[in-house]
Amino acid sequence: MFITFEGLDGAGKTTQIARLRRRLEDLGTRVVMTREPGGTPIGDALRAMLLDPGQTSLSPHTEALLYAASRAQLLAEVIRPALNEGGIVICDRYVDASIAYQGAGLQLGTEAVESVNAFATGGLQPDLTILMDLPVDESRHRVSESLRTTGPDRIEQRDAEYFGRVRKAFREIAQYEPHRVVVIDARKTPEELEQEIWYLVSNRLNIIKGIRG
Amino acid sequence: MFITFEGLDGAGKTTQIARLRRRLEDLGTRVVMTREPGGTPIGDALRAMLLDPGQTSLSPHTEALLYAASRAQLLAEVIRPALNEGGIVICDRYVDASIAYQGAGLQLGTEAVESVNAFATGGLQPDLTILMDLPVDESRHRVSESLRTTGPDRIEQRDAEYFGRVRKAFREIAQYEPHRVVVIDARKTPEELEQEIWYLVSNRLNIIKGIRG
Repeated sequence: MFITFEGLDGAGKTTQIARLRRRLEDLGTRVVMTREPGGTPIGDALRAMLLDPGQTSLSPHTEALLYAASRAQLLAEVIRPALNEGGIVICDRYVDASIAYQGAGLQLGTEAVESVNAFATGGLQPDLTILMDLPVDESRHRVSESLRTTGPDRIEQRDAEYFGRVRKAFREIAQYEPHRVVVIDARKTPEELEQEIWYLVSNRLNIIKGIRG
Repeated sequence: MFITFEGLDGAGKTTQIARLRRRLEDLGTRVVMTREPGGTPIGDALRAMLLDPGQTSLSPHTEALLYAASRAQLLAEVIRPALNEGGIVICDRYVDASIAYQGAGLQLGTEAVESVNAFATGGLQPDLTILMDLPVDESRHRVSESLRTTGPDRIEQRDAEYFGRVRKAFREIAQYEPHRVVVIDARKTPEELEQEIWYLVSNRLNIIKGIRG
């Protein structure tokens, strides 16, 4: 089973992924957790390039292609092997993030970015995507709180209009693919979110087990 | 005017590009010369990743996407600005190389690789592509002669069957786009090749000047 988490920064993905992982592992499930960009030596080198605030000359098309390259490598080295062995893969960001951040945010076109990513992934879609939805203001507030010491990365430096387009695109994907993408309100407490996510995931797992059994 | 050189390694592209550049500059033309992958700081970092013989885990899709990313950056930083200023750009390898090496060579599909590159380039095609055609045996012989000290890079290490597919794909592109791609026999002497290339380029330049004047 392949689960992805999407949403603006500050939505609480990291916390919820850790909690979901613990619950799955408590059941004796093999869980592989990974993040984008990165997750492989090549991906980590690309991540450094993509997030470096000093990297001011990166063209929007280059940015989209580097995210797709990092993703192709993550699929080849980590995601496909783990799924083939029957594990559960949880990925922090995946194709939807590129459609939202580069396709809509950078205005490269959501269909064009989707097509590049279909090449990168061979069309592999998550079984379940949890979209942790947060208003842009709230996301920026939370991010600025957490970045008082480190400063924003290259993507975090973009303006509210950019993140407005990103959020809108995420919500549109969810409307378009309701069976795969579930929207949850990230303003709830971490405990409420954990319960809600566990309900979603355990239901899907039972369905899958039911079909297989 | 945008001119690209394509062909297997050892075909003599470097020599002929240098000679063409000199002839053009002797006429007082502004010439920008560049190579792929690379030609920008980001492209050079990607070039190091792509050609490193120690980089054994790079997936074929990642490879194709990194070439496309390097190309998108080269277009944004170098090729488009130079063409906009009316200069002549000569590029050592471009989209055809990806179609041949990754699409056909690595068997990712020539149309899929073409589509990713249409995204990377915004559809910008060269005005003239010079395909320096060489039999695979001859290419491999010439490369092995020149690499006695340095050793082959990651791409050069591939087998004759791979390079056979690459050469075939190059020739098919030329058949399909005869107005853009001119095939020349790279077994001729450097002097003969220089004459032939100069004849092609100066003719195209006169046509362009004729149209513009």
